[in-house]
Amino acid sequence: MIGLGRMGGNMARRLMAGGHEIVAYDRNEEAVAALANDGAIPASSLDDMRDKLDTPAIWWVMLPAGDITESTIATIGTDAKPGDIVIDGGNSFYKDDIRRAKMLAEKDLHYVDVGTSGGVWGKERGYCMMIGGDKETVDLLDPIFDTLAPGTGEIVRTPGRNPENADPRAEKGYIHAGPAGSGHFVKMIHNGIEYGLMQAYAEGFDILKSKNTDKLPEEERFDLNLTDIAEVWRRGSVISSWLLDLTAIALAKDGMLEQFSGSVADSGEGQWTIDAAMEQKVPANVLTASLFARYRSRIDHTFGDKVLSAMRYGFGGHVEIPQ
Amino acid sequence: MIGLGRMGGNMARRLMAGGHEIVAYDRNEEAVAALANDGAIPASSLDDMRDKLDTPAIWWVMLPAGDITESTIATIGTDAKPGDIVIDGGNSFYKDDIRRAKMLAEKDLHYVDVGTSGGVWGKERGYCMMIGGDKETVDLLDPIFDTLAPGTGEIVRTPGRNPENADPRAEKGYIHAGPAGSGHFVKMIHNGIEYGLMQAYAEGFDILKSKNTDKLPEEERFDLNLTDIAEVWRRGSVISSWLLDLTAIALAKDGMLEQFSGSVADSGEGQWTIDAAMEQKVPANVLTASLFARYRSRIDHTFGDKVLSAMRYGFGGHVEIPQ
Amino acid sequence: MIGLGRMGGNMARRLMAGGHEIVAYDRNEEAVAALANDGAIPASSLDDMRDKLDTPAIWWVMLPAGDITESTIATIGTDAKPGDIVIDGGNSFYKDDIRRAKMLAEKDLHYVDVGTSGGVWGKERGYCMMIGGDKETVDLLDPIFDTLAPGTGEIVRTPGRNPENADPRAEKGYIHAGPAGSGHFVKMIHNGIEYGLMQAYAEGFDILKSKNTDKLPEEERFDLNLTDIAEVWRRGSVISSWLLDLTAIALAKDGMLEQFSGSVADSGEGQWTIDAAMEQKVPANVLTASLFARYRSRIDHTFGDKVLSAMRYGFGGHVEIPQ
Amino acid sequence: MIGLGRMGGNMARRLMAGGHEIVAYDRNEEAVAALANDGAIPASSLDDMRDKLDTPAIWWVMLPAGDITESTIATIGTDAKPGDIVIDGGNSFYKDDIRRAKMLAEKDLHYVDVGTSGGVWGKERGYCMMIGGDKETVDLLDPIFDTLAPGTGEIVRTPGRNPENADPRAEKGYIHAGPAGSGHFVKMIHNGIEYGLMQAYAEGFDILKSKNTDKLPEEERFDLNLTDIAEVWRRGSVISSWLLDLTAIALAKDGMLEQFSGSVADSGEGQWTIDAAMEQKVPANVLTASLFARYRSRIDHTFGDKVLSAMRYGFGGHVEIPQ
Repeated sequence: MIGLGRMGGNMARRLMAGGHEIVAYDRNEEAVAALANDGAIPASSLDDMRDKLDTPAIWWVMLPAGDITESTIATIGTDAKPGDIVIDGGNSFYKDDIRRAKMLAEKDLHYVDVGTSGGVWGKERGYCMMIGGDKETVDLLDPIFDTLAPGTGEIVRTPGRNPENADPRAEKGYIHAGPAGSGHFVKMIHNGIEYGLMQAYAEGFDILKSKNTDKLPEEERFDLNLTDIAEVWRRGSVISSWLLDLTAIALAKDGMLEQFSGSVADSGEGQWTIDAAMEQKVPANVLTASLFARYRSRIDHTFGDKVLSAMRYGFGGHVEIPQ
Repeated sequence: MIGLGRMGGNMARRLMAGGHEIVAYDRNEEAVAALANDGAIPASSLDDMRDKLDTPAIWWVMLPAGDITESTIATIGTDAKPGDIVIDGGNSFYKDDIRRAKMLAEKDLHYVDVGTSGGVWGKERGYCMMIGGDKETVDLLDPIFDTLAPGTGEIVRTPGRNPENADPRAEKGYIHAGPAGSGHFVKMIHNGIEYGLMQAYAEGFDILKSKNTDKLPEEERFDLNLTDIAEVWRRGSVISSWLLDLTAIALAKDGMLEQFSGSVADSGEGQWTIDAAMEQKVPANVLTASLFARYRSRIDHTFGDKVLSAMRYGFGGHVEIPQ
Repeated sequence: MIGLGRMGGNMARRLMAGGHEIVAYDRNEEAVAALANDGAIPASSLDDMRDKLDTPAIWWVMLPAGDITESTIATIGTDAKPGDIVIDGGNSFYKDDIRRAKMLAEKDLHYVDVGTSGGVWGKERGYCMMIGGDKETVDLLDPIFDTLAPGTGEIVRTPGRNPENADPRAEKGYIHAGPAGSGHFVKMIHNGIEYGLMQAYAEGFDILKSKNTDKLPEEERFDLNLTDIAEVWRRGSVISSWLLDLTAIALAKDGMLEQFSGSVADSGEGQWTIDAAMEQKVPANVLTASLFARYRSRIDHTFGDKVLSAMRYGFGGHVEIPQ
Repeated sequence: MIGLGRMGGNMARRLMAGGHEIVAYDRNEEAVAALANDGAIPASSLDDMRDKLDTPAIWWVMLPAGDITESTIATIGTDAKPGDIVIDGGNSFYKDDIRRAKMLAEKDLHYVDVGTSGGVWGKERGYCMMIGGDKETVDLLDPIFDTLAPGTGEIVRTPGRNPENADPRAEKGYIHAGPAGSGHFVKMIHNGIEYGLMQAYAEGFDILKSKNTDKLPEEERFDLNLTDIAEVWRRGSVISSWLLDLTAIALAKDGMLEQFSGSVADSGEGQWTIDAAMEQKVPANVLTASLFARYRSRIDHTFGDKVLSAMRYGFGGHVEIPQ
């Protein structure tokens, strides 16, 4: 396990709890020491790791997407022995996976990309995983995925799903999506959907919240209890979901959400999802509007808004009154 | 109970199973007979109903929103005795509730609006209810709501929610949202959110589905198993939800969804949600785009698209090739 | 002419310059005096007006849409003599026109709605008018519209337009759109389109402006001269328009548009256009997004954005850093 | 001039009419012969061209964006002599320009990208050009651009524009936007805006057209004359534009636009504009919705729509009736 941050560290612990042996490395020595304390074999460098790994070695890279993942995989590509397996469990762009898999295959190395959902709750609930790579390699790694995954648990079987002619892994919380890149692709779309779901709730709560505005006649104003509304929607409504559960948690703590500034970050997956939609010529208005709402949340006033005011002044003599 | 369709009939049965006595009426005599067979007191007309109801009578109207609900409530308004309670459990527009409550109050009648979610699953799972009306009346009706609601069941308590200083009804699946109209208003926003959530999944699955298109270089095409993807996302992913469960059921039956034409209906709530957003000056791009996607699904080619082609021909000599 | 503001005053002057006699009234006595100075017959009240008008009287109401227009027309409805004509030249909602026309017809009064475009430039360029009402009345008023309209001027005839079998009024800058309400309806859609056009330019200039951002690799940054870009696009490009001319004027004065705050107002027509789209079940993503961009421009941070952050904190432990 | 299609051929003719000497090449020999007939020096290959060009040679490539442009420029890069100038006048992606300029600079060749607007009308009206490249080269080419551009013509000077301290080229219809790539970047945004403007008109006319629907009460239906509406909006309205002129031409021919199927193509620039917006984190809801409307116009029913129906069936037992 290379990269022992919030995700990597917890995954390593869940694997060790499941009986797997872990060689752990991170640039942060304290993180390595902490994991060693929990039973991992510490490594001081990628070179050191190689010496401590079995054959074929399984290199699980769990680093932020981008340069650091790229250079680490390049280094492993140089150091690893034929037959080794390199797993990128981060949030890489799937086209990078396709390229890397091809490059590593020339050295007889196997590349597997694992998109992981479940966030900080994964250690406890298990990790939902979408896996790309060649069949033999993914099959070989099955004990690892099986341990990391949530398992069937208490989630009710989907009516109509026949376990006898369906891949049993999906019910345990992981799938082999297809060749290298497909794992991260499916995870990317997952995140695109996530943006859309979140924005749908956000807009709905926004309208509820502002229902008490003096823009409305007095008899049409309601002072709504958002905390209770989120709670009741968890209970038998059509829009119950885990994201709603999280919203209910936040609103139970503070119905005004005053600790949050209103600036919302976005990671690469939202943008890549729109790129994919455009490449495939699929309309995706909701996913795009969700992404743009986040951009907008980080801007005070856009230059475009000033262009609007300039035109309004031009044709109507309108002078905007700042609000 | 006036109106014994899919919703009204099941609610009456759930109430009777909970020990309540029901006088049942519907224009469809067979529906009345069927419910009588299950233990209800049959009524042959609203007049007949009045004679069979206790004092104060509770008139639960469960009819399609619009003229039929409006005229039925008007008739009850004429027939009912002071102190009676009229409940609209359908999907009425909340401003109609405000108007009706005012009108009925003049006759010393109490008006309560109940927005209900849970669809055809409600009989089994219980109905999630959002209730508007004056406090005394809603409190008086509590035994009814308590029976209809799902109850706390096995749904885990929201961390941070302190049952001692919070309304216990929310955890049982119903809330008193505020004065008349607020129940349907909260339900309306619920449906607006529902449209957004559904469209987010729809767009995501659309991109997954079309990932095998020849618009992409061959190495970037994936032939993805949507049935398994929906299944795995139910299991520990951030986007797990009841709507996803339903999608997984449909995809387990047919991964191509070939029984569906692609034309999608919309009911009033989606549109009213956008009206509310506009009245309150709240941006709601996702909820609106979701509604418009349904309009678009029912149109073959828009006239607007022809206007585009006409302009393209005008400035570039472009001739569109139908696809 | 009732209402001598920026629009009404200028229209009265253009009419007088065209040889028409004007009785002028406004609550603001100075406005009346100023117009009297330019040749109008001053009126001190609606009653006074009636005495000074010929038979049949033509009452042109040019007031802000809403209560003031409504009550003024109601008063005229009481005071006017059978056969009189009431014109609403403001920006009323077209359903109000339909209602008023019906109400006034009962008193044998004719109602005409005139949607007017051209803004503060109309006095000089002439007013583009969209007129609703019965044919006889609109024909009777033709000399008035003919004077107010821009006339064919130097605008080139539309190729393919055969003046012999087409209504000549369109080329002079006014049309009889249909029955009462249709004038304001067409004007309303005009404004809806206007919002969309403006937002398209706004977004484009926004992307140009931000092309110099450090979010991009240095070699991909351009420091673009927006003033010259707006100017060159006026000259033979596909996107030349009057709104672009106005943008070029503003940018010629200040390429940064620093006098504008970025808060942008909206009037009723944008919202009513979306209402119409929804009633007619026509998708209108661009017109809606344009309207919502203005709402958003007037909000610092939305509550919805805080909901997003709350969820992100919930599933990923993400803490948003305000920007 | 390499590439003698609709654009290249007309530009060559306009240049010759302006006194420039043209060596013309196209894979299509007939096109070469036709231009030779109009006074150009014919070339049978790029090699042949080189022999016939002066020093420094100016290679104007006017080919469809993509592989053919790329390979042609690569060949010229091999054949050209130091000091030569290569112009890409097509619709290339601006990052390709940046790359090519760097590559050609290593061989002491100058690269200039010219984004051109004006479509098939350019031969007559002149071409609006946005130019990227180093200052010396662009200045050297000025006589060419000056001939191709529309010139100031009868377009009124922008009030507030002081010709003494502004670049005079903008008023003549061309600008030097910045370094290589910036010409095509500005043109790309121009096209993005064009999509938005077109869609705004399209949605507006769609709502006008469908105002006669039986979804509305009879008194609210209008049978509007779109031909006259487009015409009157050309005359003094705020939304007058060249695109509206083109719409008026099309509607003058056929108010139903029946010759158009409703499938609308898109070229790369619309998509690239959204890519740029995302890279720069600028919200661009209108430009994106415009692009997606075109994708949607080419799809019969989306798979996403079927997903919606599947969910609706799941929670409500709704069966969609195809329309």
